[in-house]
Amino acid sequence: MNPGPFLQLDRVIHEKGRLAIMSLLAAAPELSFTDLRDALAMSDGNVMSHIRTLQEAGYVGVTKSFRDSRPLTTCSLTAAGRTGFEAYIGFLEQIVAQARRT
Amino acid sequence: MNPGPFLQLDRVIHEKGRLAIMSLLAAAPELSFTDLRDALAMSDGNVMSHIRTLQEAGYVGVTKSFRDSRPLTTCSLTAAGRTGFEAYIGFLEQIVAQARRT
Repeated sequence: MNPGPFLQLDRVIHEKGRLAIMSLLAAAPELSFTDLRDALAMSDGNVMSHIRTLQEAGYVGVTKSFRDSRPLTTCSLTAAGRTGFEAYIGFLEQIVAQARRT
Repeated sequence: MNPGPFLQLDRVIHEKGRLAIMSLLAAAPELSFTDLRDALAMSDGNVMSHIRTLQEAGYVGVTKSFRDSRPLTTCSLTAAGRTGFEAYIGFLEQIVAQARRT
């Protein structure tokens, strides 16, 4: 077995809540905080904490605005986030391929 | 996006060190503790701690014996470990497929 793909899995993306968030954001130009929370059935605190980690890693951008006079927080992948996510998915593919060969 | 595969990822297997150990054990009838440690370039303490977690989950069996009068510890997947690993790899496949569709 080649240990490469395991060693290279990005811990920021690998955590399963953050992996779910990154996957959702990879499939949409942007999503509101509420959309993310509802899609993942996570608590506000949980989503916020993951978003903060992704933001600190430079993977997710957060924009605060207003819609119908109510505050709206939207999230989207940064270019680094997209690159990191694609690399991560590539490593997962290698791990699956290795497992399927055994 | 279907959040199912993310929610179902087994936390015991998802940790990347344990995922590497499970992948190695899935590809061999059994491996010595030393083989695992050397293949993964991990510390003894790290491998031991992961093996203990996998053993407590019922995924890995540990056998202690002697070879050439020296103690030998070997690890192998249990039936539950094999089933759990196959299910986990199936979820990874779904996550990769979702990402590739976007």
